[in-house]
Amino acid sequence: MSEFIMPPGYRFEPTDEELIRFYLSEKALGQPLPRSSIVEKELYGDNANPWDVFSDTNPWKMETKFDKNETKSKKKTIFVLTKLSKISSKRISRKAGCGLWDGQTGAITINNSQGIIIGSKKMLTFRTKGDSNVTKIHGHWIMHEYSLDGVSLINGLKFINDNVICKITRSWKGKDLQVLENRKRSRTISCDHPN
Amino acid sequence: MSEFIMPPGYRFEPTDEELIRFYLSEKALGQPLPRSSIVEKELYGDNANPWDVFSDTNPWKMETKFDKNETKSKKKTIFVLTKLSKISSKRISRKAGCGLWDGQTGAITINNSQGIIIGSKKMLTFRTKGDSNVTKIHGHWIMHEYSLDGVSLINGLKFINDNVICKITRSWKGKDLQVLENRKRSRTISCDHPN
Repeated sequence: MSEFIMPPGYRFEPTDEELIRFYLSEKALGQPLPRSSIVEKELYGDNANPWDVFSDTNPWKMETKFDKNETKSKKKTIFVLTKLSKISSKRISRKAGCGLWDGQTGAITINNSQGIIIGSKKMLTFRTKGDSNVTKIHGHWIMHEYSLDGVSLINGLKFINDNVICKITRSWKGKDLQVLENRKRSRTISCDHPN
Repeated sequence: MSEFIMPPGYRFEPTDEELIRFYLSEKALGQPLPRSSIVEKELYGDNANPWDVFSDTNPWKMETKFDKNETKSKKKTIFVLTKLSKISSKRISRKAGCGLWDGQTGAITINNSQGIIIGSKKMLTFRTKGDSNVTKIHGHWIMHEYSLDGVSLINGLKFINDNVICKITRSWKGKDLQVLENRKRSRTISCDHPN
């Protein structure tokens, strides 16, 4: 799906309910996604370091902020449709490149305006095995993963529910941001050679 | 111009620069506005009470909030293209129905990303002559008015610069909100008969 160019001044800032109702439910029913800023990507597997997954796309914009201590931070957000990597009907593999997407919260239900459960979301972070250098260089990655739940799973669902929508945020702050800016002037440090 | 229906999840939240560059400058050059959430309205004149001007349009959505004291407030925002009501080449009439749009700030310049002045904005509020009941009933009205300025006025401008874009916010809070909600169950109180 190519990037969708909007008229100037529009921002894609969907509510949880909009993501479930208008995007994820449509996909589960075999409908094409509405034209939007959501990209389709594989987020799991041996080569799925998040910085590699998104190296060829740029539908996200950088936000730069300064907190009250004048510490500079940068943040990017992207919306992704992906398939979960299932090991069995109940088990999911979260392995992604040299690390994994690690759950930070249990599933939190999403209700529609009538109070009926239509989906759920959970938060995950990208974590490598004991190597803090990699995330210092490549930024801190947070994922909010949206799944169908409640009535969305019983109302005419034709396809197996492997699809999720992820809101992924990549951020750098303080010293790590300096590392990022220095990195542009030096060689790329990969996952296999963190030092 | 009919209301523009966007795909779900998109919000019209233009930056000052986007309003000037992609909307107001285009209009001044005689181009049609890009399809957007901006409506065209007359905001000045004997019959231009803001609640009457917007009685037939609803491109704005209500936001309800509670502050830390649990005081409920409601707010709506709309973007409007309008012509200023000029009395002479330098004087503007701000009369609108039973009140006027009263300037609260001088013009603040708007720069593009290269630091060059492209426009200016000022803040106004709607004020009636000593009758606080009217705004209690019809809400508190704030306007941010965007005008061309600097290079936008010299680069090939063909038309007289009477057009402005206004971001108008209408809000109710606390007791005034109760009056609004009670009003739905009683007669409409007009400007001429505030009591």
